[in-house]
Amino acid sequence: MTIIDFQEARRVALAVLESAGVPPAQATLQVDLLLEAELRGRASHGLLRLKRIVERIRNRVVDPLTKGSHRWRGNVLEVDGCMGLGPVVAVAALERISERAVAAGVAVAAIKNNNHLGMLAWYADRIARQGQILIALCNSEALVHPWNGRRAMQGTNPFAIGIPLVGEPFVLDMATSLVSMGEIHHFANLNRPIPSGWALDASGEPTTDAHAAKRGAIAPFGGAKGYSLGLGFEVLIGALSACALGPGVHGTLDSDKACNKGDVFIVIDPGADQGRYGAIESYLDAVRASGSPDAAVQVPGDRALAYRRERLTHGLPVDDQVWHDLQRQLLAASCQRD
Amino acid sequence: MTIIDFQEARRVALAVLESAGVPPAQATLQVDLLLEAELRGRASHGLLRLKRIVERIRNRVVDPLTKGSHRWRGNVLEVDGCMGLGPVVAVAALERISERAVAAGVAVAAIKNNNHLGMLAWYADRIARQGQILIALCNSEALVHPWNGRRAMQGTNPFAIGIPLVGEPFVLDMATSLVSMGEIHHFANLNRPIPSGWALDASGEPTTDAHAAKRGAIAPFGGAKGYSLGLGFEVLIGALSACALGPGVHGTLDSDKACNKGDVFIVIDPGADQGRYGAIESYLDAVRASGSPDAAVQVPGDRALAYRRERLTHGLPVDDQVWHDLQRQLLAASCQRD
Repeated sequence: MTIIDFQEARRVALAVLESAGVPPAQATLQVDLLLEAELRGRASHGLLRLKRIVERIRNRVVDPLTKGSHRWRGNVLEVDGCMGLGPVVAVAALERISERAVAAGVAVAAIKNNNHLGMLAWYADRIARQGQILIALCNSEALVHPWNGRRAMQGTNPFAIGIPLVGEPFVLDMATSLVSMGEIHHFANLNRPIPSGWALDASGEPTTDAHAAKRGAIAPFGGAKGYSLGLGFEVLIGALSACALGPGVHGTLDSDKACNKGDVFIVIDPGADQGRYGAIESYLDAVRASGSPDAAVQVPGDRALAYRRERLTHGLPVDDQVWHDLQRQLLAASCQRD
Repeated sequence: MTIIDFQEARRVALAVLESAGVPPAQATLQVDLLLEAELRGRASHGLLRLKRIVERIRNRVVDPLTKGSHRWRGNVLEVDGCMGLGPVVAVAALERISERAVAAGVAVAAIKNNNHLGMLAWYADRIARQGQILIALCNSEALVHPWNGRRAMQGTNPFAIGIPLVGEPFVLDMATSLVSMGEIHHFANLNRPIPSGWALDASGEPTTDAHAAKRGAIAPFGGAKGYSLGLGFEVLIGALSACALGPGVHGTLDSDKACNKGDVFIVIDPGADQGRYGAIESYLDAVRASGSPDAAVQVPGDRALAYRRERLTHGLPVDDQVWHDLQRQLLAASCQRD
């Protein structure tokens, strides 16, 4: 790990994307999203992703210029992402439904053919700070096996909620898998076994071999209920966006296939009566106080905000290889220009 | 258990409610909801509940006549349930937002001061059969402890999704607790220990004593993630409906307190392009086929529909005491009339 100053990381990441042909406004959205993941302690959704994004631009499965095409059906915005950068298409859609929800009370965006959205907490926080409620869902490449199933049939299907409060917004952002494929890779890189119950191998048998698990399937979180939840999200996203489903999904883990998963945003305007926010904050404080001295109760977002404060001041711990790759990419790009 | 013919059960349940002053239209909604739970194998949400509903009407914390009061804010319907019967207030709200969503694409109902909604699958199935998508959430009396928490701070907070398909709708209906308090009571009645990890006692210590668990707290499903999900739902419902939260919620488990939890419905019109439904059904069949011969994969709703078919033909297995109580209530009511 190297500790990198936040502004230095931002400068390098922006330069890498701009050298790949991404205009400054679009590059800023993409980089701010990745850096917010680094700040919140989610390196799996951070600078690590930049290399693949650049490869995908080179392979023409990311169009860095488009914001997608929009069609309203009532207050449901049907979005074709046209292979744009995930956050560029998503933010353009969010801006429209957020504006619409001010008068309409609620609006929905159903997005297909968009690239990876990255960490959903970034979107939830953004909308909540504007004073609106966001519910966000995505499906993704099939990595998770159904309860009793022997192969991967559903994505890690993350889900987020953002809710404005008096102070920091309430932000929940969770995948419906027990662990991420990134965590399995981490164990494989260290040649360590994974805990039992995390994954199946390629033939559908339970395994503790991280290398075998990489070719197999991750367990859903929470057994039968978590499986049902992840599947319900997959079907909901499919019904609204007409995206690909399960093993038909590509383009979230590779560098050369068009991305055909779906994303759904629901923005709800909470109205003028914001007295309730104080009651919610008191409730969350009571939840925090419901533990014991040796095991604190955390509310979703608490740990992320603690990381954030610490890293803004003291810098981001970035994997040596990731940082080295970014520097090299930048150098190669500047040589090509000379 | 006594096996009761479906129509006989319906006749007795309707008569019990009507003898308590519930008009036929309202009684029909309430009874159809309870019987649908019996049909789907969810006796905990079935005829068992009728006794408390009648007690709550007698104690004037259920007003069997009202459908609640409505106020539109854009396409968000703010509903004060005015202590009405859960399904009566809920169906009135659903009818309005469902009609609104035809043109608007999406509409939301945020309900407070309504009685217990019962099994959410009934609402999800109803809206999906009309060709619309439903997302439903409720909070409830605090029975579930936070991850690392030592006392009950959130409800069992059920969540449902209903999605129209070509054949039977997709219906997911799940609580965010590991088990229901009904299951704990079942173990207590049999004087059997509960599995470890299910519950804490009143002092916050893990227990396998079902009697101690009744005075303690149930675990969330899926550890930290399930806790976060249930808490996120509680906060979302609170932000939209201004209902009571956590230990402040009453009236879902007692017979004499006004019910102050909240309910949220989101109805989304899927538009005319229903070609996607066939693709979803093929996907769900592939999910069902992803298991092994000795352990089948079930899609949410599969088991409920199997129960339903069997029970419509062969009758409902109803607890002897529950059935005896209903008969006695009916007899007492008819004697009072004479």
